[in-house]
Amino acid sequence: MQAPSRWCRWASLPCPSMREAAFMYSTAVAVFLVILVAALQGSAPPESPFLYHIPLDPEESLELSWNVSYPQEAIFFQLLVKQLKAGVLFGMSDRGELENADLVVLWTDGDTAYFADAWSDQKGQIHLDPQQDYQLLQVERTPEGLALLFKRPFGTCDPKDYLIEDGTVHLVYGILEEPFLSLEAINSSGLRTGLQRVQLLKPNITFPATPSDTYAMDIHAPDIQIPNQVTTYWCYIHELPEGFPRHHIVKYEPIITKGNEALVHHMEIFQCAPEMDNVPHFNGPCDSKMKPDRLNYCRHVLAAWALGAKAFYYPEEAGIAFGGPGSSRYVRLEVHYHNPLVIEGRRDSSGIRLYYTDKLRRFNAGIMELGLVYTPVMAIPPRETAFVLTGYCTDKCTQLALPPSGIHIFASQLHTHLTGRKVVTVLARDGREWEIVNQDNHYSPHFQEIRMLKKMVSVHRGDVLITSCTYNTEDRELATVGGFGILEEMCVNYVHYYPQTQLELCKSAVNAGFLQKYFHLINRFNNEEVCTCPQASVSQQFASVPWNSFNREVLKALYAFAPISMHCNKSSAVRFPGEWNLQPLPKVISTLEEPTPHCPTSQGRSPAGPTIISIGGGKG
Amino acid sequence: MQAPSRWCRWASLPCPSMREAAFMYSTAVAVFLVILVAALQGSAPPESPFLYHIPLDPEESLELSWNVSYPQEAIFFQLLVKQLKAGVLFGMSDRGELENADLVVLWTDGDTAYFADAWSDQKGQIHLDPQQDYQLLQVERTPEGLALLFKRPFGTCDPKDYLIEDGTVHLVYGILEEPFLSLEAINSSGLRTGLQRVQLLKPNITFPATPSDTYAMDIHAPDIQIPNQVTTYWCYIHELPEGFPRHHIVKYEPIITKGNEALVHHMEIFQCAPEMDNVPHFNGPCDSKMKPDRLNYCRHVLAAWALGAKAFYYPEEAGIAFGGPGSSRYVRLEVHYHNPLVIEGRRDSSGIRLYYTDKLRRFNAGIMELGLVYTPVMAIPPRETAFVLTGYCTDKCTQLALPPSGIHIFASQLHTHLTGRKVVTVLARDGREWEIVNQDNHYSPHFQEIRMLKKMVSVHRGDVLITSCTYNTEDRELATVGGFGILEEMCVNYVHYYPQTQLELCKSAVNAGFLQKYFHLINRFNNEEVCTCPQASVSQQFASVPWNSFNREVLKALYAFAPISMHCNKSSAVRFPGEWNLQPLPKVISTLEEPTPHCPTSQGRSPAGPTIISIGGGKG
Repeated sequence: MQAPSRWCRWASLPCPSMREAAFMYSTAVAVFLVILVAALQGSAPPESPFLYHIPLDPEESLELSWNVSYPQEAIFFQLLVKQLKAGVLFGMSDRGELENADLVVLWTDGDTAYFADAWSDQKGQIHLDPQQDYQLLQVERTPEGLALLFKRPFGTCDPKDYLIEDGTVHLVYGILEEPFLSLEAINSSGLRTGLQRVQLLKPNITFPATPSDTYAMDIHAPDIQIPNQVTTYWCYIHELPEGFPRHHIVKYEPIITKGNEALVHHMEIFQCAPEMDNVPHFNGPCDSKMKPDRLNYCRHVLAAWALGAKAFYYPEEAGIAFGGPGSSRYVRLEVHYHNPLVIEGRRDSSGIRLYYTDKLRRFNAGIMELGLVYTPVMAIPPRETAFVLTGYCTDKCTQLALPPSGIHIFASQLHTHLTGRKVVTVLARDGREWEIVNQDNHYSPHFQEIRMLKKMVSVHRGDVLITSCTYNTEDRELATVGGFGILEEMCVNYVHYYPQTQLELCKSAVNAGFLQKYFHLINRFNNEEVCTCPQASVSQQFASVPWNSFNREVLKALYAFAPISMHCNKSSAVRFPGEWNLQPLPKVISTLEEPTPHCPTSQGRSPAGPTIISIGGGKG
Repeated sequence: MQAPSRWCRWASLPCPSMREAAFMYSTAVAVFLVILVAALQGSAPPESPFLYHIPLDPEESLELSWNVSYPQEAIFFQLLVKQLKAGVLFGMSDRGELENADLVVLWTDGDTAYFADAWSDQKGQIHLDPQQDYQLLQVERTPEGLALLFKRPFGTCDPKDYLIEDGTVHLVYGILEEPFLSLEAINSSGLRTGLQRVQLLKPNITFPATPSDTYAMDIHAPDIQIPNQVTTYWCYIHELPEGFPRHHIVKYEPIITKGNEALVHHMEIFQCAPEMDNVPHFNGPCDSKMKPDRLNYCRHVLAAWALGAKAFYYPEEAGIAFGGPGSSRYVRLEVHYHNPLVIEGRRDSSGIRLYYTDKLRRFNAGIMELGLVYTPVMAIPPRETAFVLTGYCTDKCTQLALPPSGIHIFASQLHTHLTGRKVVTVLARDGREWEIVNQDNHYSPHFQEIRMLKKMVSVHRGDVLITSCTYNTEDRELATVGGFGILEEMCVNYVHYYPQTQLELCKSAVNAGFLQKYFHLINRFNNEEVCTCPQASVSQQFASVPWNSFNREVLKALYAFAPISMHCNKSSAVRFPGEWNLQPLPKVISTLEEPTPHCPTSQGRSPAGPTIISIGGGKG
């Protein structure tokens, strides 16, 4: 009975003498912290230390490190288990659930320890994966805990496996507190589990070091009281020092008041129109009747942060300009507070820290909004699992507003409100889908990072940018309309690009007249149940639609057919000259092929069963 | 230069001395008709002789034999190449095209012969498949030609591979007339190629031997002249001998007048209503003004044949009753002549030969029509690649018309006209899809076999039978409406079952009033382009629809939403009592999961490259 006791002494478990007899059937096992050599075929671990680290659980007892090998199309993971009990589950799933998850499991039957590629069914029951695609490379006992090193190809061609793509990945974990006689005896529903969102496939880009000649400026709310309402957009005017010359912002990062991390949903800094040399020092809700009208001229995006994002760096050749002649001395901070529990009296000084330099870089960078106009005419019926809305930046607008040499997009931040599940922006040229600008198939509104693109995307005059968002409204009773409120929806991609242009907003919405035709039409089909009375607002009209399959499908058909109204806008909400209503939907005659994952050869796989890991006294 | 000359002497090729120098680079190869042993891993060929045989090309120079192993989920093929030149292609594709096909290729570079799993791209260019799923088992020179024995799993999990399913498979072939330096040098567009349709996955059923006490009766058109028009339904009344007692038909087969194989599209034999003891001896087109009205009472299906079908056998416990008291002495033969070239003066005596016995079997069998009513209200817009129409046999009808013990379906014949591409009937019970009755994902209107089901399907009272047909109207300019004409469409599954019931027809169509709502609605949306004038027929209305994406999608939404009119009919077009108009569409809350193919283990696969086949003087 020596071996079980070794495991249990080493792990934080009651020893076998205290365990049920069922776990006592085994005999001695090997003594060293080694893997059976036969199981450790395949590539050696990468030489370099791990570039990325993240704690998985709030207690930080599980730590994940990883490196990405693009040539091998594989990720090398190191999972550090600080407080090993009877094992751990680790893996990925569509949205962070422990059901239908793709897992690796380290478990013991009280005697021998095993490592295996597994999956959980829709009830959370764990099963051995007949194709073992997580390849165990090394198990090491370190002073911090047990370190498991393993490798996983991006795609495995096993339909039970998760496909690791660009964008958000929902990592999941579970703690096994006691031995299990077999893998199949484990059900994730009985375990302490959790999720962590992360972008696994980080771009192969090194961030430029912050030059020594950079200054920092904090623009933040001045110890305000967060209103006791669910949604607040707070506006605060900040004045730059008099005579502040032109600088380039090269980096910025959020400063969140401690304790308010869950309340601050997103923040933006806008510059006021250059001609405005005197802006009132407003500090209050943006929809306040007291808000001076002149603040409506402060809409030129300077910096944007949203929940989940970290510091943002500009490429070495570009920075965003602020200060100096031709630019207003006033900036407006807008903080979106999301206060669903209507907490009263919470004070806040959150904002953004700008790092800037007077050594101007070659290009001025800009931020452009793509996607849908914030208007209720774009709506999602309730009880939909994957309803898609699409916003366009048309060829007519890019033709008019982009410089002859085009622009280069280097970063992108996807944005929706609570029901957003996927976002993608595709560039179309000459009627054909050409290139993906940014895509997140596991998008979460709780993890809105600004992401550097793996490859800069050049947009030419006449190109079309098509942004589609997929929403899940299964838990809603009424239609979700477009708008500013957190319970309304948005579909936006903030793209960061250079050289800067006057075009700040290139978005669309269905033509309002055609939406009225829709209401009339379904009204007639459904025996006058929809309120189309002239005084009803679009939101009221949507709220009165009986959502049968016909009305849903016809709404989809409307959005895929009806002409659009374009917002092809400079700052200060000024449209570029031209006719922007009743524009035809851009035609796309060919779409990009879905990339087929490169299936790993069978040589790269581990044997078809679990790997036995004999853990004993250890070498340390 | 011995080896090339052996290949060329053995094959029907000019010998190397006459070939271009490019093919002359090789040296001697092995002399015997053997395979490199290393390549011939895997299962041995099945012991039994091949059950199924089919010539592939009209010249019958390629003959395919095969056996199905359901336990192994694999097919053993033997391809006999009678006149080998420089090689052959053989494989499968969606609809018989040589592009995007899954192929095995036997080829020579003028010297060595190779066998490989390959695929053709959309231009017909051949590529080596990185995953070799056709496993070569034996190559044998026989007196008839070269026999290649190989094995292929039903599914390979390789996205480039064809999935062998129930229903029609389009086999393709190509003849290589000269050597190719490499596989990649072959393009199917330059070859003599062809297709052959076949059901590969034959059910594991042995046909009962025709008992010795069976008689034959030919019911056929009496040397008529096929009218010089595209579509003719010919009606001919046949009278049974006076006092003809009750028999069971146990088998029937088509008798087609030689030379008219392409003109006879389908044939059916109907019994007249039992109370009719005198039916005029009509012989002429079914839509003739001369046709006696009483023929409308001859609608009880006795036998049905359509293009591509062979003889039909009843299960040993059942037969279809005819003759005797309570049954009319008159039957009506209906022959659908399809004469697209409007050939004049062709004479025809085609019909059906019935085999019957006076040893009555335990059950009377029946034939029931499922699917869509023949009415223009069900229409397919033009330029659709995969438009689905669905017909229902509702719970209300099965509740009323089936016996308490239900019925057992043992065979099925799917039927559409020219644009049909897929057909499926699903049984739903308690709102859930329960079982597939019959499915053909590669259905061809030119191959309408009556197929025995692999497993009998029991239909209970209250079950719903849902028949869906997928149409391709890419080559049409106007909508294709439902109807009898060959350029109109049908969606029918003739199911063969026992015990016989009075229910002959359980079909549906969209409610006509709701279709008029559709026309009004799109009229309004499209600025009054659709003719909804009261005198217009539904076909005329459909012909005037401008087929934009909106009108297409709304038609789909209408068919998926609007109430239906049911035909829950006994013979003689008499409906079962009850309200059958404005019936709700059956609700289906859960669908059957797509079966995921069982991926073969890597051990079962051949090596990743072509197999060298050394062909020389031979052992024979």
